[in-house]
Amino acid sequence: MKVKSFISLEEAIGILNNRVNNLEKEKVLLLDGLNRIIAQDIYSKIDNPPFDKSAMDGYAIIAGDSERLKVVGKIYAGEVYKGDVTKGTAVKVMTGAAIPKGADAVIKQENVIIEGDYIILKNMVVKGENICEKGEDISKGALLIKEGKKLDYADIGILASSGIGEIWVYKKPELAFISTGDEVIDINNKLEEGKIYNSNKYSILSRVKELGYNVKDINHLNDNYYEIAKYIEKLSKEVDLIITTGGVSVGEKDLLKEAIDLAKGEKLFWKVNIKPGSAVLCSKVNKAIVISLSGNPTAALTTFELLVKVTLEKLSGAKEIKIKKEKAILLQDINKKGSKRRFLRGRFEIIDGKQYVNITQIKSGNGILSSALNSNCIIEIEADNGVKFKGDLVNIIKL
Amino acid sequence: MKVKSFISLEEAIGILNNRVNNLEKEKVLLLDGLNRIIAQDIYSKIDNPPFDKSAMDGYAIIAGDSERLKVVGKIYAGEVYKGDVTKGTAVKVMTGAAIPKGADAVIKQENVIIEGDYIILKNMVVKGENICEKGEDISKGALLIKEGKKLDYADIGILASSGIGEIWVYKKPELAFISTGDEVIDINNKLEEGKIYNSNKYSILSRVKELGYNVKDINHLNDNYYEIAKYIEKLSKEVDLIITTGGVSVGEKDLLKEAIDLAKGEKLFWKVNIKPGSAVLCSKVNKAIVISLSGNPTAALTTFELLVKVTLEKLSGAKEIKIKKEKAILLQDINKKGSKRRFLRGRFEIIDGKQYVNITQIKSGNGILSSALNSNCIIEIEADNGVKFKGDLVNIIKL
Repeated sequence: MKVKSFISLEEAIGILNNRVNNLEKEKVLLLDGLNRIIAQDIYSKIDNPPFDKSAMDGYAIIAGDSERLKVVGKIYAGEVYKGDVTKGTAVKVMTGAAIPKGADAVIKQENVIIEGDYIILKNMVVKGENICEKGEDISKGALLIKEGKKLDYADIGILASSGIGEIWVYKKPELAFISTGDEVIDINNKLEEGKIYNSNKYSILSRVKELGYNVKDINHLNDNYYEIAKYIEKLSKEVDLIITTGGVSVGEKDLLKEAIDLAKGEKLFWKVNIKPGSAVLCSKVNKAIVISLSGNPTAALTTFELLVKVTLEKLSGAKEIKIKKEKAILLQDINKKGSKRRFLRGRFEIIDGKQYVNITQIKSGNGILSSALNSNCIIEIEADNGVKFKGDLVNIIKL
Repeated sequence: MKVKSFISLEEAIGILNNRVNNLEKEKVLLLDGLNRIIAQDIYSKIDNPPFDKSAMDGYAIIAGDSERLKVVGKIYAGEVYKGDVTKGTAVKVMTGAAIPKGADAVIKQENVIIEGDYIILKNMVVKGENICEKGEDISKGALLIKEGKKLDYADIGILASSGIGEIWVYKKPELAFISTGDEVIDINNKLEEGKIYNSNKYSILSRVKELGYNVKDINHLNDNYYEIAKYIEKLSKEVDLIITTGGVSVGEKDLLKEAIDLAKGEKLFWKVNIKPGSAVLCSKVNKAIVISLSGNPTAALTTFELLVKVTLEKLSGAKEIKIKKEKAILLQDINKKGSKRRFLRGRFEIIDGKQYVNITQIKSGNGILSSALNSNCIIEIEADNGVKFKGDLVNIIKL
């Protein structure tokens, strides 16, 4: 079967959406659920607060009772008062303590005068005053978190407040990274003539870590398609996603394409109409998705944002693969006419409630890594519509 | 000495700025430098690319040479051609290969006709065409990264491309977390009468993890100031920052204040004029900064963002403690008159290049944790100026 080639970014995303599935669900301890996508609706098991609670240090009384009350007891937070508050009496309560039976209001301690065992109320209180009612924050049975949400610290806190210690989440993808290229050497070696340092390994592993994923296997292979095929074949049974760099557009041989064929993989698409990063091969080998990026740093990092990041999100439980775009106001003119959709490195900034973007990239070219420095977004320039002016709205993809 | 009390947020930040120092520097492996603040200027040790490199698969030639050239060799990326390109000859070069001596241009392979050992050029090329010049991306000696920058994945990539394997960064703070309160029980226990689940532990530990810090010690202590003092004293020699929750505003005793005194700590300030979260005690005990937050979830989380997060940043190497504020356009009216500065939970969103913010908090109160759900920022409402209308610009602090 002929592999789909030179397709649009949207078509590539569509193919990934069809072929990438959410991983299985697993039960984890609450704290391990942070940044994971929850795989169940969660309802509160309890009222929160679980009882009528004093909001202040003061005295639990009956609203409308007499002005002079006998203090018959005292309770701290965490304690339960055994008796009742009856007409003519009060119980001293600390913030957070359960309101004793019979009482229906709390007067702040600074609003009473103490006379031995008695208090004199300096002002009236109404029913419910200074009491946090049972269930006021969250009522028993209320939906706390809906399936599909990526859990942040507030979600974890809410689940804890309801006493939920374990939750079902989607499994996190396991990743492998392979850089290829006879010209590429690792940073701890002396730079020989004709060689370059392996920056892709470091930038991509760092980006993966920033996004909260772990890489299980990291390797560099030389330009030998048999070795590459063998290694991909082995990994494809162990991990969910394999990222490779290099060997997709250079030299006489399409190394990665040959390696995927040899590993009996299915090529999903080959080359996307974008610049930089058009040279990208996406395949499925056994259970793994293999995304083969260019060896050119800028191309690799751009395609990573457009295709790898969203694939990781879907594996992690996102319903759909989608590149999130926002609008920003250009701070300078752009003249990038061309038949391919362009992606330039930029830096957005919010000024007085408006989002502006500057191009950080001075030099262009697939190999120019310095263009990524100080950027926090990618600016999208449509094909055949590459002339933009200062003040125009453009699409940006935040990193 | 009397502790500074009921101070403004700015004064609190000022005190922290004076008393919190950057931690020491340490040398780490490049990949471990991600998200750390670099403690040195770094200059490129090499030109990048390190040699004149072919940008295309094609033939290295002398620009302006004859139309028909003899192919005398072939080199792949990573190889070095031993001979020279002389008049009348060409060397086949793959993308990334070093340009052979003598050649000064590359003609793309699709622009030649092959005739046995010869190629016929279909078009002219000019000097430098399809060559990435040595040092074109980064020249030797250029400043790559300036001291004080928090390193992202592009920075790590740039450093790798220059062969830098180890870097000096500021040490990451070591943290401890102590929740206090007789009424607080952990989520794995049955909820007894008068008790509440410990949500602060889970939300704050999650927030700390989101921000990329590790907590070395986690504990819950009952309302016993002697035990709390003993524990803080011990930790204060081991960690850089201790976060406590509870015991700062409730009950008859100011538990944490007494504990700090007993531990011979210095109280830096006590209570800040903000709502929620005014009840906060900040101290120095031995080498540790101790920030004692309220036991009320919303108060604790708000003060965490305003005081703890920035303290962690300064310990990690930031030059100055500063709360980063942005403007956003209100999507609804707010009526929160009061003598204290208010902080409300909100959700910002960018629409057509403008930043809008909605209040997510429906109920208010120190104890209302549900207000933090679905929020991604905190909205600041100035004291005595709490009436705002839809369309007004307000300050937000992004989470």
